[in-house]
Amino acid sequence: MSSPILGILGGGQLGRMLALAAARLGVRTRVIDPSSEACAGDVAELVTGGYADERALDRFCDGLDAATVEFENVPLDTVRRVASRVPFHPGSAMIEWAQDRVLERDLFEQFGLRTPKCCAARTAEEVAQAYANMGGAAILKSRRFGYDGKGQAWIRSPDDVGLAWESIGRRPAMLDEAVRFDRELSLVMVRGASGEVRHYAPTENVHVDGILHRSVAPAEVEESGILAVRRSIENMLEKLNYVGVMATEIFDCDGEYLVNECAPRVHNSGHWTIEGAQTSQFENHVRAVMGLPLGSTASRGHAGMVNLIGSVGEVSQLLACDGACVHVYGKDARAGRKVGHVTVCADDAFTRDAQLDEIERKVASGVEHVDEIA
Amino acid sequence: MSSPILGILGGGQLGRMLALAAARLGVRTRVIDPSSEACAGDVAELVTGGYADERALDRFCDGLDAATVEFENVPLDTVRRVASRVPFHPGSAMIEWAQDRVLERDLFEQFGLRTPKCCAARTAEEVAQAYANMGGAAILKSRRFGYDGKGQAWIRSPDDVGLAWESIGRRPAMLDEAVRFDRELSLVMVRGASGEVRHYAPTENVHVDGILHRSVAPAEVEESGILAVRRSIENMLEKLNYVGVMATEIFDCDGEYLVNECAPRVHNSGHWTIEGAQTSQFENHVRAVMGLPLGSTASRGHAGMVNLIGSVGEVSQLLACDGACVHVYGKDARAGRKVGHVTVCADDAFTRDAQLDEIERKVASGVEHVDEIA
Repeated sequence: MSSPILGILGGGQLGRMLALAAARLGVRTRVIDPSSEACAGDVAELVTGGYADERALDRFCDGLDAATVEFENVPLDTVRRVASRVPFHPGSAMIEWAQDRVLERDLFEQFGLRTPKCCAARTAEEVAQAYANMGGAAILKSRRFGYDGKGQAWIRSPDDVGLAWESIGRRPAMLDEAVRFDRELSLVMVRGASGEVRHYAPTENVHVDGILHRSVAPAEVEESGILAVRRSIENMLEKLNYVGVMATEIFDCDGEYLVNECAPRVHNSGHWTIEGAQTSQFENHVRAVMGLPLGSTASRGHAGMVNLIGSVGEVSQLLACDGACVHVYGKDARAGRKVGHVTVCADDAFTRDAQLDEIERKVASGVEHVDEIA
Repeated sequence: MSSPILGILGGGQLGRMLALAAARLGVRTRVIDPSSEACAGDVAELVTGGYADERALDRFCDGLDAATVEFENVPLDTVRRVASRVPFHPGSAMIEWAQDRVLERDLFEQFGLRTPKCCAARTAEEVAQAYANMGGAAILKSRRFGYDGKGQAWIRSPDDVGLAWESIGRRPAMLDEAVRFDRELSLVMVRGASGEVRHYAPTENVHVDGILHRSVAPAEVEESGILAVRRSIENMLEKLNYVGVMATEIFDCDGEYLVNECAPRVHNSGHWTIEGAQTSQFENHVRAVMGLPLGSTASRGHAGMVNLIGSVGEVSQLLACDGACVHVYGKDARAGRKVGHVTVCADDAFTRDAQLDEIERKVASGVEHVDEIA
């Protein structure tokens, strides 16, 4: 077989959905993951091995046409080793920045993006000092390896500092202003090998307990503000020679857009694009890293997505909702774990939101039912 | 991992697209195919073995939750062996009928479906006699194992009989009236485990050299005539306790619908449903055979599909057409082989047809280009 092969560092649901998108284009995929149960292994060749396992990495790299990541917290040495052997995107520079909240914010500021007030802190004393300077509630975030609200702690008074510092593991941190935002938006875009950038519709996200719960798109936004943010990020991507999908999380503070963080990869807030856009974020990421032309990012109606968290519950109930596009990742149930999602597309936002509400009710009742019989 | 596993007899592109649809639902797939290069093996577990290889079949069946077929010409002994071990759909009865053109036509007539005039023939003499009785041009078709126009020969005069008989391999045959039809339609429907039947929009097909070239849906049809055909087929499926997708090919003779043949499986003329319907034929087949509720078969606009035959040509050119959904099966190039397809969805038939024309031009130029550099 002469099909090209794309390697993916990480075999979770993002790797799985990348593999499914690649397969449609005739691109074979190989993932490397420390777990032999990694769910992408159902649909891709799986190399089981740690990211520092040189022999596993050699097996992974062998014969690849290109490589990419499904998550930004892969060790930089691993990224560099792979990038030295195989055309690798989105490039180690962006991954390095994205791994460190402080470097990431510095980068945003270099490109003129407004961000929440923040301050680096290496000790409990520095946290206390930064909090005093902040002049209001703040969130202490470990600089590295945070996701889904992990490695974060609120500080609402000086008395909270000690506990917050302990709870994030006494690690180098960033104290972040607790922004009073109206809502969180995300901007998913893709930059192709030719430098062309395409944008998906702005997405509005609702988090529960630090985990993305619901996304809807297109979000109603203040166009000129979004355009300015997009331009700055485009400049940043061009400077970094970035290739692939990039997601940026933004706080909407009464029409002022503050950039919180970015993810140099496909993103949960872009899952709706599988049904809700002409070309999904997964397919466009594959196209970009394989050097193929980008596909249209135009929306198909009003899309919404609900995450399935912990357990998929009663899948039959979800499948019985006409118009519900159900995605199950094949992962074992575990509290707080993303195990699937459901997307709907409607002709208007009102219908979409009603469908999402119905799906959320079924998800809630299905999960209760599972708890009962467990 | 506790994901259910679906077994598929046959690992070609239909098995591959079934596997991709199953993966989205968290259903793992295992295919069995005589070729170790079977393209479904890129995205499913592949058991390499002949359909009469008992040990391979044992490995295939081990631990399956359900099984199905991607093509109807799998040996009946194999079907029965698998069905004795694993819940199997669409059932051996329908496959037996579908393997034999004469039995199939008898079945259609039992359920009141109008068909072209036909006659069974076991010898050249019987073919000559049948042709004399037919009173016009006819097509000699081998009773069994025909597809994509293979095993068929025209008879336009008594002198053609000998050559036609030789060309189909002197095998039991059916002489079929050469119907003067205006166009070929197909009806793709799915029957769930509960007995519920859902219909996709009628599809109009254009064949070139006996191979499906282009499909568009929804086709404009005479509603009451189509309804009558659908009802008869529904009755047939109910009688056979059929579960899964069924495709029926129909000749439209000035508004009179003659049923030509059916395929007890997902069908090339239903590929447009991946983007053009709420739930694809592949997902609905998986849902049906896994005992899950069916999904909506409603259309999303006006869809059209062009097959990529022989070689995919210049994929980049196709990907550069905005709105072209490109599917590449990962098969080696070979004359007459279906190696991929391209789907478009538009708001109206005129726009769709213009997009299909553009894609066909690019396919033609891409293939020429490949020939030049080969």
